[in-house]
Amino acid sequence: MRAIGIESGDDRPRLFDVARPDPAPGEVLVRTLRVGVDGTDHEVVAGAHGGPPDGEERLVLGHEAVGVVVDPTTTAFERGDVVAPTVRRPPPDGPNEYFDRAEPDMAPPSACVERGIDGAHGFMSEYFTSPAQFLIPVPDELAEWGFLVEPTSVSEKALELARASRSSFTWDPETALVLGTGPLGLITVAMLVPEMTVYCLGRRDRPDPSVDLLEALGATYVDSRETPVTAVPDAYESVDLVYEATGHARHAVDCVEALAPGGVAALLGLPGASAFTFDGGHFHADLVMHNKAIVGSVNAGPSHFHAAVDRLASFPPWFFEDYVTEIAPVEGFEAAFDPDTPMKTAVEFDTL
Amino acid sequence: MRAIGIESGDDRPRLFDVARPDPAPGEVLVRTLRVGVDGTDHEVVAGAHGGPPDGEERLVLGHEAVGVVVDPTTTAFERGDVVAPTVRRPPPDGPNEYFDRAEPDMAPPSACVERGIDGAHGFMSEYFTSPAQFLIPVPDELAEWGFLVEPTSVSEKALELARASRSSFTWDPETALVLGTGPLGLITVAMLVPEMTVYCLGRRDRPDPSVDLLEALGATYVDSRETPVTAVPDAYESVDLVYEATGHARHAVDCVEALAPGGVAALLGLPGASAFTFDGGHFHADLVMHNKAIVGSVNAGPSHFHAAVDRLASFPPWFFEDYVTEIAPVEGFEAAFDPDTPMKTAVEFDTL
Repeated sequence: MRAIGIESGDDRPRLFDVARPDPAPGEVLVRTLRVGVDGTDHEVVAGAHGGPPDGEERLVLGHEAVGVVVDPTTTAFERGDVVAPTVRRPPPDGPNEYFDRAEPDMAPPSACVERGIDGAHGFMSEYFTSPAQFLIPVPDELAEWGFLVEPTSVSEKALELARASRSSFTWDPETALVLGTGPLGLITVAMLVPEMTVYCLGRRDRPDPSVDLLEALGATYVDSRETPVTAVPDAYESVDLVYEATGHARHAVDCVEALAPGGVAALLGLPGASAFTFDGGHFHADLVMHNKAIVGSVNAGPSHFHAAVDRLASFPPWFFEDYVTEIAPVEGFEAAFDPDTPMKTAVEFDTL
Repeated sequence: MRAIGIESGDDRPRLFDVARPDPAPGEVLVRTLRVGVDGTDHEVVAGAHGGPPDGEERLVLGHEAVGVVVDPTTTAFERGDVVAPTVRRPPPDGPNEYFDRAEPDMAPPSACVERGIDGAHGFMSEYFTSPAQFLIPVPDELAEWGFLVEPTSVSEKALELARASRSSFTWDPETALVLGTGPLGLITVAMLVPEMTVYCLGRRDRPDPSVDLLEALGATYVDSRETPVTAVPDAYESVDLVYEATGHARHAVDCVEALAPGGVAALLGLPGASAFTFDGGHFHADLVMHNKAIVGSVNAGPSHFHAAVDRLASFPPWFFEDYVTEIAPVEGFEAAFDPDTPMKTAVEFDTL
């Protein structure tokens, strides 16, 4: 069967022919429909993050997938069920406490592998297998957009952590600042606009489809070249929630400045090493005097995948049409990896 | 009656004669027993923090108090009840949403005054009055140590915020690192040792009564001159909880390094401006990849004062004898303000 992967040392993904997997009892064989591409995929392709399974030289890519059950083996799934697979799986030495608790997202990197990213093959192939416990049911109506369950789950988790951090007092967030106009930032804007005033910060020149989309959703675009994070309170207002999806190193400290008293910043981006000078005394005292918080968040657990399915079902249909700008066929999969594509891309292996 | 206060521009607290207050209906007249002294008092005395009520040149000090009701007026209190007053009170323009919700600790500084600290007279006088809603009942058996309710409440709140921030997943903290061997650090060590392994970091040469006390409580002393915060994981172990009570600016970022995956740092210290260079990219990515969190915490609300009363009732009697090193009489109150006194001091106005 056809699979899209990256060879160690290569600088671009390629199409390979690999053996179709056989499901063991308790596993499910899934026919792949669509697999999304995100910033993590670009990092894996660039060799900056993750790598193949131990002892192998090639990694099948893809961690944002939706597919159809073709062989449920001994599991409760039925042939024809639409499913989205989770990403984190037990490491080679077997399950651990994080998997026992169905909280794989809380595992340190050494206690898990990530399919399509680090140490385990992904879902960019015509078929894949998975233990049933790592497959999330998706309604047929969402089959086309089910590859968005995974990125949405990542935001569900971050927002859950942020809310939890404010759960010991009365906290009714009215304003949010999303840092980043990429795919993760935009889908988070869509999640937040029904509940609060949303600002979305980026560096894009109009006309731009990402800016158009966030404005169509009802958010306000903030050009970071004119209004950096720290200037948002004066230019607009202080915000109850910051959602950081750019990985710009300084945002981890600058975002506290944008918070209203009692606010929280959720960090999801992953910068590399980056030294800079800042007023750490002010940062420290601001956190204390105004009861502010910062939560880091990575990946998502099964509960967040389920929440993501419900969330996607609440989105207006036009959102998906505008948000997903490229569905590439397998034989032209390279279009889905074009870093200049403004919004969301996916590779289509098959249709329902 | 006698009161201890600070005149604007003066560099030390002095004894004054002030009028004994008359309680209005709904207020309570309290005969003061003991009033503790902490780092905030030293900052107020030094002119670095807070100040007198609007239009006045003198501030009566003291925010850690215990007293006895002598006139309950129309309130539900009875003559003889032992009480500890809360610190934050409505600002001159009246109560606001934070007071309506009984969450004055979440107010920004502009939305409250603080008795004995900023904009309102404190409790270092033979009598004080207070609306009944800001008085917390204390059992008679704790009357002697009731001035510790306020500092304990501050830690109750910080630990509540820290736990809340981890409440969306399974979090059973087994290890804590308390930064600071001052009075707040030590009482927090006493709060944490029944539940987890506790390290306490400071810079004291043995023999030292603070080090003796934290070791008697079962904690491990870490000399920051040999083992700075960032070296704690290698020298000892990573910790689930950091409690920062020194106000050292760098701790706000360095403490993340000491955290285990899923850990949280609670910040309570208040540094001034302090610029430094650090690897913000590493800080940012560490928070994300390991689901770490930072919560700033200031002051405490009524619920935390009640929790503090219960907490103090659980402490072994020897703790108070060792922890409180100086009970100064009013006429020798200066001893309670000696910055070289190793542990907890108070001024005694009267006995039960």
